[in-house]
Amino acid sequence: MITFITGNQNKLREAREILGDVEGHEIDLPEIQEVDPHIIIKAKMDEAKKQGLKNFIVEDTSLYFDGLNGLPGPLIKWFLDKLGNDGLYDLVKDKDPKAQAKTIIGYSDKEGKISYHEGIIEGEIVAPKGDTNFGWDPIFKPDGHDKTFAEMGPEEKNTVSMRKMALEELKKYLTE
Amino acid sequence: MITFITGNQNKLREAREILGDVEGHEIDLPEIQEVDPHIIIKAKMDEAKKQGLKNFIVEDTSLYFDGLNGLPGPLIKWFLDKLGNDGLYDLVKDKDPKAQAKTIIGYSDKEGKISYHEGIIEGEIVAPKGDTNFGWDPIFKPDGHDKTFAEMGPEEKNTVSMRKMALEELKKYLTE
Repeated sequence: MITFITGNQNKLREAREILGDVEGHEIDLPEIQEVDPHIIIKAKMDEAKKQGLKNFIVEDTSLYFDGLNGLPGPLIKWFLDKLGNDGLYDLVKDKDPKAQAKTIIGYSDKEGKISYHEGIIEGEIVAPKGDTNFGWDPIFKPDGHDKTFAEMGPEEKNTVSMRKMALEELKKYLTE
Repeated sequence: MITFITGNQNKLREAREILGDVEGHEIDLPEIQEVDPHIIIKAKMDEAKKQGLKNFIVEDTSLYFDGLNGLPGPLIKWFLDKLGNDGLYDLVKDKDPKAQAKTIIGYSDKEGKISYHEGIIEGEIVAPKGDTNFGWDPIFKPDGHDKTFAEMGPEEKNTVSMRKMALEELKKYLTE
């Protein structure tokens, strides 16, 4: 059974839907200051290994603005915290609106071998619309859709889930 | 003798000028992802203590934009890396230009008691001017001056040094 290092029950449920038997494990792993998510995930996995964990996954979901040369990326939580969705939109409203929502899953197998599995959704940063319950969902409109993540119901959102894509990639890797 | 955990010879020289006997010590301390510099410094000091260090200082110098509600703060290195000084200026050119350049020195004494010592220079973010050798110096114009940090000679810059102010604060603390 794979261990998913997370305290987020929604993410855990999503992982179970795709990978089957997954147990959640909540430990406090330090998040280092970096804009490359692989380095952040690697640091977390090294720490989890030190604590004796095997066969586990760590996840990072970040938002990359083309108009800010890839910022905020993994720093999105601080941007959102300090500026809110209005402030985030304001940063790029006169710039290139293209953005990527990206999930990277780091997997450390029983022998400690590490692999990374990505899911990327291309889209645009727009003025906040929809339900404001979940992070930056109100400002991200995936390409080919008229709605932001926050305006979509669970079913539609499920068709453009970068986290689901990354989990499917991992599943492929595990079954090969 | 106090140990300054830094690999930067200029910072070390500045500390010696104010505190007298200071030795430099270069160790790799993890920089955690945070916008409160005290938490970043505290994490570094905890790690240095674990490695057996006593009577040492750790320093953080960051730039806080009023127009971005305190961002970038300690995240300035990533902003500068991704956007450059032109991009940094562009972020606030239509917003409140006020900013603070702030140095915080964390000091852990022989018994491991921690204290923080600050130096703050108030100023404005302006279009880049002057020598581009040193970080964000070209976009920070301290209040009461017509020049950016990058346009000042060493002597003038010395009169508005947030790092010097923080070191003077620490000196006061040590002699009291």
